[in-house]
Amino acid sequence: MASAVLKVEGMTCGHCVSAVEKAVTGAGATGKVDLAGKSVAVEYDEAKVSLDAVKAAIEDQGYDIV
Amino acid sequence: MASAVLKVEGMTCGHCVSAVEKAVTGAGATGKVDLAGKSVAVEYDEAKVSLDAVKAAIEDQGYDIV
Repeated sequence: MASAVLKVEGMTCGHCVSAVEKAVTGAGATGKVDLAGKSVAVEYDEAKVSLDAVKAAIEDQGYDIV
Repeated sequence: MASAVLKVEGMTCGHCVSAVEKAVTGAGATGKVDLAGKSVAVEYDEAKVSLDAVKAAIEDQGYDIV
């Protein structure tokens, strides 16, 4: 398993937390958002999921990876 | 039809807009949120819906009516 912490701009509330975590899950990884820290900790299996796919799923929800 | 503009604290993003408008609809009224203005314009049939019920539905979503 690999892990990464992505900085994400635009998350403002609990709905945003859910949207981002759901996007990460949908991409086949697991994610835990730190709303105050404007970040999401991602764990994923490099053999199955690319970090770029996770980033794309988050961006598809309208958030910017910085 | 009656109308009212409620001041609502805690709406921060499009998800919040949807949550509040859905709450208003669920209470049997129609609502249009002004996110920047921190308010929601509500239209309702006084014979069928009480404004208190609309307020309660919004508060149930975690927002404060001020």
